Amino acid sequence: MTVYNFAAGPATLPNEVITQIQDELPSLQGSGMSILEISHRSSMFDDIINAVQADLRDLMKIPDDYEVLFFQGGGTGQFAAVPMNLATDHHRIALLDSGHWAAKAGEEAKQLGYKVDTLATTKATHYDRLPALTMTMPDDTYDYLHICTNNTIEGTAYHELPKTNHVPLVADMSSNIMAQKYDVADFDLIFAGVQKNLGPAGVTIVIVKKSLIKEVDGIPSVFNYQLFAKKNSMPNTPPVFNIYATGLTLKWLKKVGGIDEMQARNQKKASLLYDFLDQSTLFNNPVKHQDRSLTNIPFMTGDAKLDLAVVDDLAAHGLMNLKGHRSVGGLRASLYNAMPFEGVQALVNELYRFEKEM
Amino acid sequence: MTVYNFAAGPATLPNEVITQIQDELPSLQGSGMSILEISHRSSMFDDIINAVQADLRDLMKIPDDYEVLFFQGGGTGQFAAVPMNLATDHHRIALLDSGHWAAKAGEEAKQLGYKVDTLATTKATHYDRLPALTMTMPDDTYDYLHICTNNTIEGTAYHELPKTNHVPLVADMSSNIMAQKYDVADFDLIFAGVQKNLGPAGVTIVIVKKSLIKEVDGIPSVFNYQLFAKKNSMPNTPPVFNIYATGLTLKWLKKVGGIDEMQARNQKKASLLYDFLDQSTLFNNPVKHQDRSLTNIPFMTGDAKLDLAVVDDLAAHGLMNLKGHRSVGGLRASLYNAMPFEGVQALVNELYRFEKEM
Repeated sequence: MTVYNFAAGPATLPNEVITQIQDELPSLQGSGMSILEISHRSSMFDDIINAVQADLRDLMKIPDDYEVLFFQGGGTGQFAAVPMNLATDHHRIALLDSGHWAAKAGEEAKQLGYKVDTLATTKATHYDRLPALTMTMPDDTYDYLHICTNNTIEGTAYHELPKTNHVPLVADMSSNIMAQKYDVADFDLIFAGVQKNLGPAGVTIVIVKKSLIKEVDGIPSVFNYQLFAKKNSMPNTPPVFNIYATGLTLKWLKKVGGIDEMQARNQKKASLLYDFLDQSTLFNNPVKHQDRSLTNIPFMTGDAKLDLAVVDDLAAHGLMNLKGHRSVGGLRASLYNAMPFEGVQALVNELYRFEKEM
Repeated sequence: MTVYNFAAGPATLPNEVITQIQDELPSLQGSGMSILEISHRSSMFDDIINAVQADLRDLMKIPDDYEVLFFQGGGTGQFAAVPMNLATDHHRIALLDSGHWAAKAGEEAKQLGYKVDTLATTKATHYDRLPALTMTMPDDTYDYLHICTNNTIEGTAYHELPKTNHVPLVADMSSNIMAQKYDVADFDLIFAGVQKNLGPAGVTIVIVKKSLIKEVDGIPSVFNYQLFAKKNSMPNTPPVFNIYATGLTLKWLKKVGGIDEMQARNQKKASLLYDFLDQSTLFNNPVKHQDRSLTNIPFMTGDAKLDLAVVDDLAAHGLMNLKGHRSVGGLRASLYNAMPFEGVQALVNELYRFEKEM
């Protein structure tokens, strides 16, 4: 039985990448040493981390006035690192509350002593749409505006960005980086854990405008953007394997056609599922059409017990990890880059069969 | 040609571990999913992380009143996290300056705003021995005393611990954890990156007395001991693969006989090299005998050009990564748990041949 993994992250990776890792695990490039054993100070690893950076720049068309940095600690680490490095003038940030992870970013900044103003929220409608920024942002109040481009739990995504009126725009892009096309120049900082679209958990990518990087005293070295920029992301030992595996996924992404091709594939995959859900009399996706995510699609029957029965039925057919997040309930299908169209087809077929036999 | 990797870390891993990772990479436990893809919220991963913790407790005989936690960010991350969590009464810590990494821990605490008193240092003699704590420590001045049990760069190790007079003892054990036997009850906190003796870079183990864990406001969540203790080290996505690989190394360690056996093997390996160096008229290890490390052995000819020629000669014979750290120069052999006796024998044979043919 072919198994399709619809987990929200860590998530499915391309088979080719896993096969390549497997093939070269005992001896990287004929060195007699495993990627699990090589020094981060070796020329072999220098080549690897430099290629990852070059491929990221190439795929995302990152302008030269941006740094590309690699951290440990996940998105939650950056919820602390971003205000520590950027909120140095006003110690106050603005937030659009589009769901669980946007709110979490605000909570982390607040508990670290920064002022956080939520300029708009759609909590009242259970985050079934994106919050609209209707005010003109004052340009002397906030160090930046934080948004979450794709809301993994609630299934919404920004297809148009808010107008910040010169206030720097910071985006948590963890769940749709390279799954959907954005212009990096529209952001001042993008961060993303790799574990959804790009690799195994353990690396967080930060893409930040060089002009925003400054000397900041009194913050942990492992979160210091200036230090990481100076030391090619290696002031201390980086997660060597995880960076290497991310690099292989980027090579795969380039080979299959880059972000344009990925977005086209993801639109096709998502449409297949949304079209089914919209005509279904059993299942429903609660998200406003214009704000729907390409990568994370929650749906439910309205009957929690029945939802669980569907999850079990799907698992019995090799369609795994479709249980929704506890805060939303129901089911959730994550259709990241490495999920093939056939996986979504198998999912829709089985949902259709289930509904018909009810 | 058999390749032996003497790197200081990331470092050599047991062949059995690499083979097992390779074998089960495409499908973990018949799930059809790779360890690189499974969710940290899955019962499969729960079993993995719980087993890693249980094996750590078993191997190190960790008493029940200690927590075992897993972080990202390496030793440098803990240089920040330890004072943030522990230096809450006096905001002042004490330090024994035994070398590069002990000094670094002090610098990080200082730049974060903590007072740091270096109670003893052997910097004047180029860290060729451990600093002796001759004073009786006052019990109302310091939140803890920081030591580095094994100095990776300088090649010294604590075989007897300093008497702290009730002041909590914090140890950076990154380069000799489970390579040498210590009684966990002699410490209040131990931390160690896994990338020398236990696994691929990307996980840091913290073993901390439960009574020292308290609610601390205003510190990053990813460094919050209380939060990690409450959430089984998973308030956010952990480095799933790295924890899994560490777990396999622990199973290997148990199979071959645990820490007692490792220490015996490491003593035998280190003695072979030290005995050679001590009778050599070409090579010299500068460290005082009673403070010598089992895992990291620097040595040199006194002629920097000749040292480099030796490094090249060894590499040509499959004996890799023997260049010393730039701050010490010469050569350095790291003989961690996974380095077989045959590797050290091959190294000594080649050094002997080199010296004879001079």
